[in-house]
Amino acid sequence: MLLHPDRLLPADPDTRALARRLFADVAHLPIVSPHGHTDPRWWGENPAFANPAELFVTPDHYVVRMLVSQGVSYEALGIGAGCEADPRAIWRCFAEHYHLFRGTPSRLWIDHALSEVFGLDARLSPANADDHYHAISERLADPAYRPRALFERFGIEVIATTDTALDDLAWHKAVRASGWNGRVVPTYRPDSVVDPDFEGFRGNVERLGELAGCDIGTWQGYLEAHGRRRDFFRSMGATATDHGHPTPLTADLPEAEISALYQRVLGGRANAGEAELFRAQMLTEMARLSAQDGLVMQLHAGSFRNHSAHVFGTYGRDRGFDIPQPVSFTAALKPLLDAVGMDPGLRLILFTLDESVYTRELAPLAGAYPSLLLGPPWWFHDSFEGIRRYRDSVTETAGFMNTAGFNDDTRALCSIPARHDVSRRVDSAFLAGLVMTHRLDEDEAFEIAPLLAGGLARSAYRL
Amino acid sequence: MLLHPDRLLPADPDTRALARRLFADVAHLPIVSPHGHTDPRWWGENPAFANPAELFVTPDHYVVRMLVSQGVSYEALGIGAGCEADPRAIWRCFAEHYHLFRGTPSRLWIDHALSEVFGLDARLSPANADDHYHAISERLADPAYRPRALFERFGIEVIATTDTALDDLAWHKAVRASGWNGRVVPTYRPDSVVDPDFEGFRGNVERLGELAGCDIGTWQGYLEAHGRRRDFFRSMGATATDHGHPTPLTADLPEAEISALYQRVLGGRANAGEAELFRAQMLTEMARLSAQDGLVMQLHAGSFRNHSAHVFGTYGRDRGFDIPQPVSFTAALKPLLDAVGMDPGLRLILFTLDESVYTRELAPLAGAYPSLLLGPPWWFHDSFEGIRRYRDSVTETAGFMNTAGFNDDTRALCSIPARHDVSRRVDSAFLAGLVMTHRLDEDEAFEIAPLLAGGLARSAYRL
Amino acid sequence: MLLHPDRLLPADPDTRALARRLFADVAHLPIVSPHGHTDPRWWGENPAFANPAELFVTPDHYVVRMLVSQGVSYEALGIGAGCEADPRAIWRCFAEHYHLFRGTPSRLWIDHALSEVFGLDARLSPANADDHYHAISERLADPAYRPRALFERFGIEVIATTDTALDDLAWHKAVRASGWNGRVVPTYRPDSVVDPDFEGFRGNVERLGELAGCDIGTWQGYLEAHGRRRDFFRSMGATATDHGHPTPLTADLPEAEISALYQRVLGGRANAGEAELFRAQMLTEMARLSAQDGLVMQLHAGSFRNHSAHVFGTYGRDRGFDIPQPVSFTAALKPLLDAVGMDPGLRLILFTLDESVYTRELAPLAGAYPSLLLGPPWWFHDSFEGIRRYRDSVTETAGFMNTAGFNDDTRALCSIPARHDVSRRVDSAFLAGLVMTHRLDEDEAFEIAPLLAGGLARSAYRL
Repeated sequence: MLLHPDRLLPADPDTRALARRLFADVAHLPIVSPHGHTDPRWWGENPAFANPAELFVTPDHYVVRMLVSQGVSYEALGIGAGCEADPRAIWRCFAEHYHLFRGTPSRLWIDHALSEVFGLDARLSPANADDHYHAISERLADPAYRPRALFERFGIEVIATTDTALDDLAWHKAVRASGWNGRVVPTYRPDSVVDPDFEGFRGNVERLGELAGCDIGTWQGYLEAHGRRRDFFRSMGATATDHGHPTPLTADLPEAEISALYQRVLGGRANAGEAELFRAQMLTEMARLSAQDGLVMQLHAGSFRNHSAHVFGTYGRDRGFDIPQPVSFTAALKPLLDAVGMDPGLRLILFTLDESVYTRELAPLAGAYPSLLLGPPWWFHDSFEGIRRYRDSVTETAGFMNTAGFNDDTRALCSIPARHDVSRRVDSAFLAGLVMTHRLDEDEAFEIAPLLAGGLARSAYRL
Repeated sequence: MLLHPDRLLPADPDTRALARRLFADVAHLPIVSPHGHTDPRWWGENPAFANPAELFVTPDHYVVRMLVSQGVSYEALGIGAGCEADPRAIWRCFAEHYHLFRGTPSRLWIDHALSEVFGLDARLSPANADDHYHAISERLADPAYRPRALFERFGIEVIATTDTALDDLAWHKAVRASGWNGRVVPTYRPDSVVDPDFEGFRGNVERLGELAGCDIGTWQGYLEAHGRRRDFFRSMGATATDHGHPTPLTADLPEAEISALYQRVLGGRANAGEAELFRAQMLTEMARLSAQDGLVMQLHAGSFRNHSAHVFGTYGRDRGFDIPQPVSFTAALKPLLDAVGMDPGLRLILFTLDESVYTRELAPLAGAYPSLLLGPPWWFHDSFEGIRRYRDSVTETAGFMNTAGFNDDTRALCSIPARHDVSRRVDSAFLAGLVMTHRLDEDEAFEIAPLLAGGLARSAYRL
Repeated sequence: MLLHPDRLLPADPDTRALARRLFADVAHLPIVSPHGHTDPRWWGENPAFANPAELFVTPDHYVVRMLVSQGVSYEALGIGAGCEADPRAIWRCFAEHYHLFRGTPSRLWIDHALSEVFGLDARLSPANADDHYHAISERLADPAYRPRALFERFGIEVIATTDTALDDLAWHKAVRASGWNGRVVPTYRPDSVVDPDFEGFRGNVERLGELAGCDIGTWQGYLEAHGRRRDFFRSMGATATDHGHPTPLTADLPEAEISALYQRVLGGRANAGEAELFRAQMLTEMARLSAQDGLVMQLHAGSFRNHSAHVFGTYGRDRGFDIPQPVSFTAALKPLLDAVGMDPGLRLILFTLDESVYTRELAPLAGAYPSLLLGPPWWFHDSFEGIRRYRDSVTETAGFMNTAGFNDDTRALCSIPARHDVSRRVDSAFLAGLVMTHRLDEDEAFEIAPLLAGGLARSAYRL
């Protein structure tokens, strides 16, 4: 049996029994997915997936990084300029290395998808690789395995995609035009037009101006362009923005300084410190706009993107070489929080890859500022131990209501139910532990469980 | 039942049974409270508490911060210039939001106080808020609920207050004069006269000189003033000093440089770096004085005080907006430790809000220097998980004897027995776990438990 | 009974039963010890150990630091210039303070050695100190307690020593010449010739040149000297190098800059920043050489050596006063990794004393770069909780195969089997926990256990 019904529940029999009851209550609740990276085309066009390798291996940076770390070449995975690999060969390579994923969340997610989505109950291995490939391929040809059908089968209530500020949201329009009633909403992600170090920054800003009908030659025009694009995203259902920054630094400069800084940045004359300062200022500006228009702001900080020059140069972005760095939010967020942190209109959700800030900074901050919420464990921490550490670390200082619920943050469609399943199980185990040690009453645990499973995400993201 | 007799003990039945026996042995030991913030007036004057809101809500920054974080206004809590709120309304607001505290130590403490101190066995809720208010109010009018009676009922052997270097210790004198034999001792807290960034620093130093009869116009006179004030505190029973610094930086400059630095600081001409350097130097000076006069030195470092400019400006200090920052002790303490770290007269107890230093720095430091002890988990970490993480983290490198026992660090009188109860339970659970995994023999655990419950605090603080 | 057969196994009965079966499978596997600090003379000359104090107390910096931290003087331990202490008195002092080690790994290791190596089944105490001393002394006179006999009795398959780049490896030659077939291999440790701050750096480099027959007056000659010494070490069986650096900073400067930097360093004209830069550059150079000659590179970073000026000045190195500091690998390693991180010839094993980098940096790095492996928990973290935290922290992101197995890192001969025993027990407990929560199948756990017990170390170190 690939999936044990008690997986991830505590070993102690009494605690397990309670955790099982808590989990049973939330296992089948609708999925609220307020932050993710599924391809909007899937929802707009509803295409069939090409083959198992393209579904499970190549685009999954967790999978690719593990294989590469143990000596598999990108070329063997069909990644690289002019590289064409037989998907069957990629799948076999994956099966031969499947043992590498023992103990990792990828293994839980993939086993879950193979079993629950594709009905395959034997663990992937070199021996059954071809049979599994064949079986999955057959199913992928079936309309029941197209994105919209899976959306419905997975019980998704709403899913948010992440879209650059320059996106025309054509696929979101296509969803609306199609008559399909799945709820898919965009998220405003302005990194490419607020980060002077982003490739093509100047051109991106010019395009922003064109799309918004604003003169980006001035600071006010540039800000206005953001406001109009945000309005457009809101008109298409967006309830949130997302900001990926190397650090959580914020700034709140006097208008004249910002204006001058903007001109240097736009002219390509900003040095590294000025680029950082501009990103910092833009977080505060975005927070101000959020306090006005109600878009929930998300800050993902602390990843050193594309760490290997060789991998980035040869194979491009998102190849598994984003590596976390130390972050500190306390001093960094003060300018933004002094500007709008007590404004009832602002909601800012904070994410970290540096777990040392959970107890030191994030729980104390979210447990004080009414505008702040703690995002769920992010990326490498979206895992059994990661979620456990998160709950152990933040609950005592921030409580449950200052957390933003779960989100799956994924571009791997079939992992969505798996990830929510893991999260609901670990949270059930956590709540059971609180009850067993008499830190919480049972009726309270049953009240909290559905909040963690979806309710908090729904309210945090104003969905 | 509000308090389960097995609360906080491990879920595993055998481990729980042993933990229960260990806890039974220490549950009723006297309370040694060597570091706290109770109001000396309570002990000197023994007044009645005004009402439940004033006892449980308004002055408790843990409670206030959680309410504010979920949108309750300070005004609704009666906080703010000219703000007068009906204590009954504050109490109702608290009851309506009591669910926010699920999973937090505040909930454990308040439930404990309601049940053990006030005999109320139903969890606070909007439905019973008025009844509870009435019941508590009634009891507060009873002399058995005045501070000294509670002191005795709680089994407090000794309690230390925290007092500025400028305090006349009038309430401590009143205790002595009263004939009441509760042991209440002051603690020398010189932040306001060693930190150039403290409001009114210059005036504070002048007042220090007056009180001590020293000429603070010179560095030597200023140091001498500290010595005399420390002597005065010692004559009133003090055994310790306490130092709240933004960072643990220390310095040991040549006399001429210190003298010049002191003059700049006193003249208000010091920049931020010089102010930090002066604080750093003063830690070393205080350590030197401690090595001579035997006052145990406590260092609490790493809090960014009054983080929100708006909250600080409008509602003042201690409103729940002190947020931890990263700290590092290893290099920072070297100047002080090179000066007096091997001196048998010095005892320095270290506290942190940044748990990453437990295994990395504090346990290794305390496990080497004879002058150093580890303080218990501080502030946000005075909690079930916080104490567990502390023991798990520091014991293997520092052992038990390099830790300073428990202290409650509180201004909330009714939480004192609750906090010691939590600490004794978590420590019993920890010891039971060591025995069950055969890292410790049972007789050893029974020897250690009372040390953790009070013995280590008594000896660490020379009480 | 000093050693319980179920020690360190989980308290939950079902989990314990499985952990016991897993442990039984690996308990008696040969010891692979790829990184340690045993004295090569022991293996070359096979002398008798002098007395219990010299075996267990004086050279063990874990033991010495704990005694000193609680007020025992170095002199009482026979440490200090011209200090001669009766080993019996040292042993008694140790016995009187043995309770200090409760809850520490030293206690586990020493109990294990007393029981398993010396057949003493009563815990050391003041009452039995003399008897134990006598019994151990008697055994030490027996040839069965000489190093080579213990090597065989402990089931050591291979042991690596750590040797400076200037070592003549005479004792390793003696092993080979002796006909004894224990496998003892050296490790190339060049700190004294790559760190400009090392005592006698210039003389050390000159000696390096003489030994290698190279002109160290030029950068190329100096590099060539390293290459030749590495070849010599390889000819004596070395498979690895070891690098102890204050920080993990690396650099990859243009040749002309390196050459100029080398001249400043060699001439004693480098400032602190340049010394750091030279160490940083040398890590990259060593990585390049490793990619060519196949020596596995080990980086141990983050210890502030000889923290107390007084202790260092009076009693010298390795007296228990090395204190960890914060480290960050992500940005620091980029120059080295950009140079050779994707080179299939390089293997670099990373060690840390700052556990906050496990999930934040080390697991993500080792889970991406094919050249990187995670070393086992180092030094203060080679302990029950340390190993548990390590597995909990790194497995989900790096899996098992990106870790380098266990090493004992010790100069205390009798602790070798004890340390491997602890590690195998904690790993068995960890694997049992994964199976009990259905994150791993039982057959998989039985496949992984022997890898953790020795297989991974064997392959990681190319032994």
